[in-house]
Amino acid sequence: MRCEVVAIGTELLLGQIVDTNSSWIGQHLAEAGIDSFHQVKVGDNHDRLVETLRQALERADAVICCGGLGPTHDDITREAIAEVMGVPLELDDEAAMRIEAMFSSRGRSMPMNNLRQAEVPRGAARIPEQPGTAPGLICPVGDKVLYAVPGVPHEMHEMMRGTILADLRRRAGKETAVIRSRTLRTWGQSESGLAEQLGGRIAELDRSRHATIAFLASGWEGLKVRITAKAASEEEAVAILDDEVAVVEGLLGDIVFSTNDEPMEVVVLDLLRRAGATMGVAESFTGGLVASRLTEHAGASDVFRGGVVCYTSDVKHDVLGVPEGPVVSEETVLAMAEGACRVLGVDVAVATTGVAGPDRLEGVPVGTVWLATCVGGEARAFTVRMPGDRERVRQFSVITVLDALRRRLLER
Amino acid sequence: MRCEVVAIGTELLLGQIVDTNSSWIGQHLAEAGIDSFHQVKVGDNHDRLVETLRQALERADAVICCGGLGPTHDDITREAIAEVMGVPLELDDEAAMRIEAMFSSRGRSMPMNNLRQAEVPRGAARIPEQPGTAPGLICPVGDKVLYAVPGVPHEMHEMMRGTILADLRRRAGKETAVIRSRTLRTWGQSESGLAEQLGGRIAELDRSRHATIAFLASGWEGLKVRITAKAASEEEAVAILDDEVAVVEGLLGDIVFSTNDEPMEVVVLDLLRRAGATMGVAESFTGGLVASRLTEHAGASDVFRGGVVCYTSDVKHDVLGVPEGPVVSEETVLAMAEGACRVLGVDVAVATTGVAGPDRLEGVPVGTVWLATCVGGEARAFTVRMPGDRERVRQFSVITVLDALRRRLLER
Repeated sequence: MRCEVVAIGTELLLGQIVDTNSSWIGQHLAEAGIDSFHQVKVGDNHDRLVETLRQALERADAVICCGGLGPTHDDITREAIAEVMGVPLELDDEAAMRIEAMFSSRGRSMPMNNLRQAEVPRGAARIPEQPGTAPGLICPVGDKVLYAVPGVPHEMHEMMRGTILADLRRRAGKETAVIRSRTLRTWGQSESGLAEQLGGRIAELDRSRHATIAFLASGWEGLKVRITAKAASEEEAVAILDDEVAVVEGLLGDIVFSTNDEPMEVVVLDLLRRAGATMGVAESFTGGLVASRLTEHAGASDVFRGGVVCYTSDVKHDVLGVPEGPVVSEETVLAMAEGACRVLGVDVAVATTGVAGPDRLEGVPVGTVWLATCVGGEARAFTVRMPGDRERVRQFSVITVLDALRRRLLER
Repeated sequence: MRCEVVAIGTELLLGQIVDTNSSWIGQHLAEAGIDSFHQVKVGDNHDRLVETLRQALERADAVICCGGLGPTHDDITREAIAEVMGVPLELDDEAAMRIEAMFSSRGRSMPMNNLRQAEVPRGAARIPEQPGTAPGLICPVGDKVLYAVPGVPHEMHEMMRGTILADLRRRAGKETAVIRSRTLRTWGQSESGLAEQLGGRIAELDRSRHATIAFLASGWEGLKVRITAKAASEEEAVAILDDEVAVVEGLLGDIVFSTNDEPMEVVVLDLLRRAGATMGVAESFTGGLVASRLTEHAGASDVFRGGVVCYTSDVKHDVLGVPEGPVVSEETVLAMAEGACRVLGVDVAVATTGVAGPDRLEGVPVGTVWLATCVGGEARAFTVRMPGDRERVRQFSVITVLDALRRRLLER
């Protein structure tokens, strides 16, 4: 069973709106075990839309087209589908009544424009769910099917969940498989390095076809390893994933910081919570990024008490008691971490100092950072040369210092 | 001149990643006056990719394909393009050297995998910009052209801006019109409120067709008003925009904080720089978000000295000298702002305390925030009830407190 997605709207091509609908549909098709090999964006142009729909129907058993069901002149999906089906549009009285009711329920009278939304290609069925004024359509084309849903996300979601996914599964019969994924997150190894460590396993999976492994470099979210299994049942897919996650984690070792797609700061907060420890930060060039990342998460307050952003030397000295000396150095970052524990009254702290760029600082090249962790009164520092621009140097430093803390907490 | 976009990656079809690259490319093609009528997503499958590229080349004069240039087994764009061109892949020594240099500059040795990235279809040219390990490619196919760029956004952006857009314009010759936009940013008025204030002007423009006005609600980037002009020449477009920006700013008044698409914190940093004032922050529930936002920008250190993240009452009391009492209150936020000025030795400070959620705090409902500014020793506080979830409450509080500081600085 193959299903293509056609997202309709010139504003999508112009990049005025990002097409998140296709992604949402693609994800839900995958979870239903339905293949989707092409997804197309096309503008509000009748001929190109007709051509695109015909082509999609040639390649696939089903097509979901999203958008262009509104009341205005540039909403042309209904006409295009009618042409593809080779039938006329007919006014659907019940649809018209529904739309009218929707307006009157808001104490407004229906603009005549909206009657266009009640026009349905002959032979098409309306999708029962209709949260807005636009009816969704199920349009048979020979032995294939074309679904039309509105571009308004929540209206589309309701129709997909309520009718379309089930209809697709029914049409697919027993051939549908269940597809499930698990994502491991790693830090400390390059994408190609991971590929080498997992090369043998990937080759085995290419033969056995039990599962697939994909890498997703995701900046300071970590380097993700996504394992996807296709199976006859939920249970089978989950069992395959459990085994495969264990294999991959075994091959990669402690660079895996989450087997459940959790961000680094959540992993660290959980480790500290279990240890009953409190945490603080001292940040120079990351300028509050570590603290803001930790406090994104509700419940951080169980563990995280606060931080000092010491962007200038004076603040390092006055607030944290950092001795005079070069700012980007081991001495400074160690004193910052110890100062944070003392001033904030916490058991554990991390500290960052470095050169985010664009210019050198005190002759130190851009990307040079010193990071420290202080656990149970013992501070340890290390230096890294970060690649990339200011934003990436800052972000990579955040996950790197939190990863260092994670490793120290696991040691104990 | 027609240019199609092909986004490559099974993770895009599965909805594991939203394809923002095509939108970005579409927007920049539009601004360059180049038509883009189809944008396609296709997975990491050799045959389907080859077929998709051939089809795109039939319909368009140029194709930009994005993604699949990485070092791993599922990066197949190079092979597919070579097949479309009917040529073999050849190792490009300079590309190989570049990649090797990139690794050694980080003190790492290059995994052999990465050599795959240096394989180039015979007859293809490398794009000079190469911020990462993946070289971008310009591949002639008959009298048409196929560009290959990495899926990593910042690498793709650099190649588009540096080479591809100019190359496309050159190929298009004089047939392209110039489309230019200017974006104003506002804070403190709803989208529909803006639409009312600008309704008359928008109606005039619908008649005169000089320019178009679009609203883009952009979270804590502010509510953007984008003015777009299409003209025969750069000069003409810029002249239209200058006039229109003046008109719109006149209609909207001081809710406009930038006429040049600058973020709020950049505007505030510039005002402080001109006033020769230093700044600090005291943050409770925003947890470092104000500081990290300010320090995103190189040169913030002229003005920004540091901050205290006082996530718990103890830190508020011990570090900032905030008296005991309810945490989300006028007294507390005023004491935090004054404390920040004193402890950090700065002329100006902002402070935030509030309930980000998901749960009430001390009986105070989620979304209740107290914000303060302290300028020249005089602290002022105000309270707001923020809509939305934890993330939005935190982000809206950041831009709201910075906007309050902006208004105070403009008063003087």
